[in-house]
Amino acid sequence: MSAARLKAAIMGATGYAGFELTRLLLRHQKLAAPLLLTRSEGSGEALESTYPELMGKGSFPLEPFSWKLLKSRGVNVLFLATPHELSRELVPEAIAQGLRVIDLSGAWRLKSAANRAVYGFVDDDPEAAAKLDQSAVYGMPELHRDEIRGAALVANPGCYATSVIVPLAALIRAGLIDTAHGVVCDCKSGVSGAGRKPTQKTHFVEAADNLSAYSVFGHRHTGEILEQAGLDAEQLIFTPHLLPIPRGILSTIYVKLRHACGADEIEAALSECYGKGGWVRLFPHGSLPQIRYSLRTNYCDVGYQLAPDGRRLIVVSCLDNLMKGAAGQALQNLNVMFGWSEKEGLE
Amino acid sequence: MSAARLKAAIMGATGYAGFELTRLLLRHQKLAAPLLLTRSEGSGEALESTYPELMGKGSFPLEPFSWKLLKSRGVNVLFLATPHELSRELVPEAIAQGLRVIDLSGAWRLKSAANRAVYGFVDDDPEAAAKLDQSAVYGMPELHRDEIRGAALVANPGCYATSVIVPLAALIRAGLIDTAHGVVCDCKSGVSGAGRKPTQKTHFVEAADNLSAYSVFGHRHTGEILEQAGLDAEQLIFTPHLLPIPRGILSTIYVKLRHACGADEIEAALSECYGKGGWVRLFPHGSLPQIRYSLRTNYCDVGYQLAPDGRRLIVVSCLDNLMKGAAGQALQNLNVMFGWSEKEGLE
Amino acid sequence: MSAARLKAAIMGATGYAGFELTRLLLRHQKLAAPLLLTRSEGSGEALESTYPELMGKGSFPLEPFSWKLLKSRGVNVLFLATPHELSRELVPEAIAQGLRVIDLSGAWRLKSAANRAVYGFVDDDPEAAAKLDQSAVYGMPELHRDEIRGAALVANPGCYATSVIVPLAALIRAGLIDTAHGVVCDCKSGVSGAGRKPTQKTHFVEAADNLSAYSVFGHRHTGEILEQAGLDAEQLIFTPHLLPIPRGILSTIYVKLRHACGADEIEAALSECYGKGGWVRLFPHGSLPQIRYSLRTNYCDVGYQLAPDGRRLIVVSCLDNLMKGAAGQALQNLNVMFGWSEKEGLE
Amino acid sequence: MSAARLKAAIMGATGYAGFELTRLLLRHQKLAAPLLLTRSEGSGEALESTYPELMGKGSFPLEPFSWKLLKSRGVNVLFLATPHELSRELVPEAIAQGLRVIDLSGAWRLKSAANRAVYGFVDDDPEAAAKLDQSAVYGMPELHRDEIRGAALVANPGCYATSVIVPLAALIRAGLIDTAHGVVCDCKSGVSGAGRKPTQKTHFVEAADNLSAYSVFGHRHTGEILEQAGLDAEQLIFTPHLLPIPRGILSTIYVKLRHACGADEIEAALSECYGKGGWVRLFPHGSLPQIRYSLRTNYCDVGYQLAPDGRRLIVVSCLDNLMKGAAGQALQNLNVMFGWSEKEGLE
Repeated sequence: MSAARLKAAIMGATGYAGFELTRLLLRHQKLAAPLLLTRSEGSGEALESTYPELMGKGSFPLEPFSWKLLKSRGVNVLFLATPHELSRELVPEAIAQGLRVIDLSGAWRLKSAANRAVYGFVDDDPEAAAKLDQSAVYGMPELHRDEIRGAALVANPGCYATSVIVPLAALIRAGLIDTAHGVVCDCKSGVSGAGRKPTQKTHFVEAADNLSAYSVFGHRHTGEILEQAGLDAEQLIFTPHLLPIPRGILSTIYVKLRHACGADEIEAALSECYGKGGWVRLFPHGSLPQIRYSLRTNYCDVGYQLAPDGRRLIVVSCLDNLMKGAAGQALQNLNVMFGWSEKEGLE
Repeated sequence: MSAARLKAAIMGATGYAGFELTRLLLRHQKLAAPLLLTRSEGSGEALESTYPELMGKGSFPLEPFSWKLLKSRGVNVLFLATPHELSRELVPEAIAQGLRVIDLSGAWRLKSAANRAVYGFVDDDPEAAAKLDQSAVYGMPELHRDEIRGAALVANPGCYATSVIVPLAALIRAGLIDTAHGVVCDCKSGVSGAGRKPTQKTHFVEAADNLSAYSVFGHRHTGEILEQAGLDAEQLIFTPHLLPIPRGILSTIYVKLRHACGADEIEAALSECYGKGGWVRLFPHGSLPQIRYSLRTNYCDVGYQLAPDGRRLIVVSCLDNLMKGAAGQALQNLNVMFGWSEKEGLE
Repeated sequence: MSAARLKAAIMGATGYAGFELTRLLLRHQKLAAPLLLTRSEGSGEALESTYPELMGKGSFPLEPFSWKLLKSRGVNVLFLATPHELSRELVPEAIAQGLRVIDLSGAWRLKSAANRAVYGFVDDDPEAAAKLDQSAVYGMPELHRDEIRGAALVANPGCYATSVIVPLAALIRAGLIDTAHGVVCDCKSGVSGAGRKPTQKTHFVEAADNLSAYSVFGHRHTGEILEQAGLDAEQLIFTPHLLPIPRGILSTIYVKLRHACGADEIEAALSECYGKGGWVRLFPHGSLPQIRYSLRTNYCDVGYQLAPDGRRLIVVSCLDNLMKGAAGQALQNLNVMFGWSEKEGLE
Repeated sequence: MSAARLKAAIMGATGYAGFELTRLLLRHQKLAAPLLLTRSEGSGEALESTYPELMGKGSFPLEPFSWKLLKSRGVNVLFLATPHELSRELVPEAIAQGLRVIDLSGAWRLKSAANRAVYGFVDDDPEAAAKLDQSAVYGMPELHRDEIRGAALVANPGCYATSVIVPLAALIRAGLIDTAHGVVCDCKSGVSGAGRKPTQKTHFVEAADNLSAYSVFGHRHTGEILEQAGLDAEQLIFTPHLLPIPRGILSTIYVKLRHACGADEIEAALSECYGKGGWVRLFPHGSLPQIRYSLRTNYCDVGYQLAPDGRRLIVVSCLDNLMKGAAGQALQNLNVMFGWSEKEGLE
C-alpha cells in the first residue's frame, strides 16, 4: 500500500497466459495496477471486451506500446506474453532501457544454438542477442533461485518443460537415473496450452471426446528439457498429447535407476531440491497427483511409484499450464527478483 | 445393386453436415458412389485428408464443380451443404438443368419475403428466385410427405427448427395450443451446429464448462418456425443456447393449452401426426427424452409433461443436429422423393 | 489476527458444498480455523484423505459431533452442509444452545406448510420446529440484509432458487411483471449440484455429451421461488436440466411485462435492488452473462434482452452453484450476521 | 434370413459392453434375436428400462438364467459380459452342455497360473478349470484366427490389452524389438472402461476436467500382454490413465529396436500380421491415429513414428474400448467361429 509499489507492464494481456498474469498482478499487494500494452493500432480496445468476466472490476484499457509510454509511466518490470518473434525483437531494447524483463515466450530459454535452431530466430543485432542468450536466466526458481534474484532477463519456462524438468532435474542431480538407458516423458496437456487463437485443432468438435499425440520427436520444448536436465538428445523421448480439458498438464515419466532404490532414496532426492520453499508439492510414495489437484494453483505436484524390482521408476507430475506452467511461475519469478516471498500473490 | 442406381452429387462434403451426408450416401443401397464437388480451385484434395477416419475405405477425391461434370457423370440429384449465398446462386441453374435438389442451407426454406429479409439474399434473377421460393418444398417428410414426393427443390429444415416444429405443428394442428398466450422455445445445441470453421465461440476453451444464450430474439431459424407452425412473430420466443457437447439438440417448449387436457389428448395429437411412419419417436407421458438417446440416429424424440392443472404443457424434443437436424433428414427426403422406404440407409 | 476471532464449526465438510465452504472459511481473515464435524463413527478420517488437493496445507481431522465438543471449543456459529433431515434434527438444539446457525440444506427455507410438504419432515418437537420455521431468515443478503443481521438461524437459499429469485424478485417488486401471465424459468445446472454421492445420473458416461430435463413440475426449490418472488403456484414454471459440466448454473427466465418497457426501466428496477452492495452483477442491455464468467466467484450475474415490442423480456442469470448457490452465499450471510463487509473472504 | 439362423444368448446385457454387444447381435444378419439373461431374481425388467434409447425398437425382456431355458430356446452360443467370478463359475457347465462360449471377462484369458493369481479365482472343480484354462483360446482373430475357428471357449481380450498387443505382437514376432531394453506402454482410456456401476472415480465431477494414472505396476491386463507379446514381467511397463471422455483408448508405446530401421521395415512387420483381413488399420509413417477416428467402429488403428536415429520407435494405437476392446471383437470372434466374414455385422 506504500507509494513505492512496483510498476509492471504486460504485453499480450489478451492471450490466455497474459490474462491469467494480469489477474495475478491485479491482486498482488506489492504492485501498482499494471500497464497493459498492445501493438494493434487504433484499437482503443479494453481487456474487458475480450474477457467479460472482468465486469464490475474496473476498466482495463490496452494502450499502444511505445518505449516512451513505459518511461512516462515509471514502469520497472516488463512481462512479455507474446509470440517468440516479438519477444526476440523487443527484449534487447527493453534491457538497454534498464527494464527488468520476464518473458513468457520461448525466445530466451535456450543456451545452445543447436537447440535454438528449431525456432528459426532472425535477430536484428545478432551480437546483442547472443549476449542476452547467455545472460538470460531460466526462470524456474526451485532450480535457479540465486541467479533469478539478480537477473535482468528471466526466461519463463515452457509448461510441458516445467512438468518434466521438476522431477527429472532433482533425480538426475542426485545421480539416481541411468540416463544412458533413456528417459521417456509421456505428457498430456489441456487445450489452453495451444493458445487463444482459434484453429481446427482447438475447435471444440475436434478436441472433445478425443486424445491425440502431436509433435512426436519434434516439440519445441525439447531443448529446454535437455539443457535443464542435462541430457543428450538421444537420451530423451518427449511426447505431447492434447487432452479434452481446458487446462492442466499431467506428465508420466519413465526412468531406469542406476541401482535398486527404496522409496526413501527417491523421496530424499526430491526433498533435497524441493523441500525448502518454492511451489513443488511432493506426494508420498504410491500416492499420485491428478490434474485437478493443482488446477488454479501454482503447484507442480510430484508423485512416484517404484517397480517391485526397485530399478524402474514412474513419476507423475501435474500442474496448471497457465499457472506454474506460465503466469504463476512468472509471478513467482517476480517475487524472487524483488526479494519477496515466493508465495506473495499466489495463494 | 442394379445398374440403375441413382447418382448423387454433394457440394460441401468437408463441412460437418456434408461429411455426415457423405457417409450416409456411401452406405445407401440404392445409390451409386456420390460425386463430391468443390469450388476451391486447384485443390486436388481428397475428403480423407480432412477426415482421416475414412482410412481404409477408399479414396474420395473432391472434384472441381461444373455443370458439365455433373452431366457427364449422370448426376440425378444434387445435395447442397453450402453457405446460404452459394445455394441461392446455384439452385436456379440446377433446376433449369433438370436436376432434383436437396438444399441443406437456409436459402429456400421461407415463403414470406419478410422472413427472408434476415438473410439479405441478393439474387441474379429475382424473378426466377421468387418462383423457386414458392415452389420449393419444406423438407420435413412427417409434415409434407406428399409435396416432397414430386418436388424439384427440397429445402431441408434447420436443426433447431426441426426440434421445435415437430411437436408444435402437431399440437397446433390439433387445435390444442392457446397460441395467443405465446409459445416459449428454450433450445440448446451442441457445438457442431456452429459449423466446422474455427471461431472464438467454438474454441474448446471458450465452449467447454460453459453455457451461453445467443441470438436472443434474432435467430435465423425463427422464420421457419413461424411459417411451419403457423404462428405470428409476437407469439413465438425462441432462444438458442450453446451446449458444451459435440452434437445434439434438446428443446424445452412451453405452451398454454386452450382447455385442461389429459395426457391422452396430447398423445392423440402427436400420434395423429407421427404415428404412421417417419422418424419421430413419441415417449409416454412423463418420460422425457435425453440428448444421448437420439445421437447418431435420425429420430426426433418427443416427450411431454402436463402440469397438474392440465393447462400448462412442457414438451421436450431431442435430435442429433447432424442427422434429423441436417444430413439424416436430407436422406429421408431423398427416400421420399424417389419412393423408397423412409428408413432406407438410416438404420 | 486478534484473539477475538470467531470460531465456526462445519458439519458435512466432505460434500461438495461443505468442502467449498471449508476452503472459504480457512481463508477468511476474521475466523479461527474451523472445527470440522462428522457423524460417522470411529472414522478418524481427515478431510485431506477425501480431497488430496489439500496436500501441504496442514491436517484437517473430522471430529465426532457432540454438543459438548462444540462448547469446549468455543464455537460461536455452526454451518450445516447436511441432508435436510439431519438439519431438521440438529438445528432446534443448536439454537437452544445459543449457537447461530447457517443451514445450507432446504430444511428451514419455507414459511408455508404447503410448500414444506414436499420434504416430508418428521419433527421430534413439532412446536419448536414450527417456531423456527417462522423465525428462520431466508439467507439472501441482497433481499433480507436487515433480518439476517440479527438472525439466530439463517436458511441458505437453494442454488437454482438463487439464480431465479435474484432477477424475479427485483422485477416483481418494481411492479413490472405481468405475473398472471405466468413466468417460465428454464434452468440448467452442472453436475456438482446433484451432490458427491455417486449415482447412475452422475456417472460420467451418462452425464457427458448429454442434456436432460428432470423434476419437471416437481422440483423442491419451487416453494422457495414462490415465497421469495411472491408468486402463486400456477404462475411459475421451473424446469431444471442437467448440464455436462462440473459446476455452474444458467437460468433463462421468460416474463411478460405489464406495459411496454425500455431497457432503462428494467435496469432501474434491477439497480434499485442490487446497485448498493451485495454480489449481484448487472450486465448492460443485450449483453448476456455466460456460465464461465461467474465460476469460482460469488457473483450472481444478470443480463437481459427486451423483445422489439417491449412487452416480452428474457433474463439470463448465471452463478456458481457451489459459491453464490451454496458456500459463497453462506459466507456472505456470515459476513452480514457479524457486521463485516459482504466481500470479506470472497474476493 | 434362413430358418437355420444361429441362436445366441447374452448374460450381462445391462452393462456397457453387454449392451453394445446386444445392439450388434440384433443387427447381425446370420443370427436370430438373442436371448437376454439375468441372474437378478424376480426382476421382470426389460433392457429398455435401463436403455431408453431402445424406444420404438421392440421389447427386450431379461429372462432368468437357467440351463434349461438355454436348451429349450435352442441356444448355440453363449456370450458372457459378466464379472470374472461369474464367468469362472458358469463356463465349465456351459462347455459341458455343448455350448460354444465367448467370454468378455478376464476369467479365461491367462495360461500361466502366476498371471492368474491377481484375480484370485476360487474354482468349484479346479481340475476342470485347469483344463479349460489351457483349451481356451485368446480371442484376437488377427493373431489366433485358426484356433478360434474350432474353439469351444473363446476368451475375449481386455480393452487395454488389445490396444497394446496389436502393435507389440507384430513387431516382436518380426524380431525388431530389443525386448531386453524394456517396453513402455502409456495407455489412456475413457470412463466406460470402468463399468456402469457408479463409483466415486466415475462421478462426473471427479472425472471431468481431469486426468489420473492408476493401477501403476499392478493392472490386471498386464498378464495378457505378457503372454500374448511374449515378454517377461520386468520387460513391460503398462500404465493406465483415466481420460475425461465416455469411450476410446489411446496407447502410446515406446520401444527400442534391435537395429536402426527405416519406416519400410516397420510397415512390413505390421502388414505381415495385419495386411490380410481382420480389423487392424495401419496408418502411414508419421500419420498418427486419434481416438475419435475409431470411435464406434471395430478398428484398432495403428500409427508410428521413428526417431531420426532409427533405433527408437513410438507406436500409437487407438480403439473403441466397447467395440474392438469388447463387444465388437466378441462379434468378430463369433464370425470366425462360424466361418463368416469377419466384417459381418460390424460395418
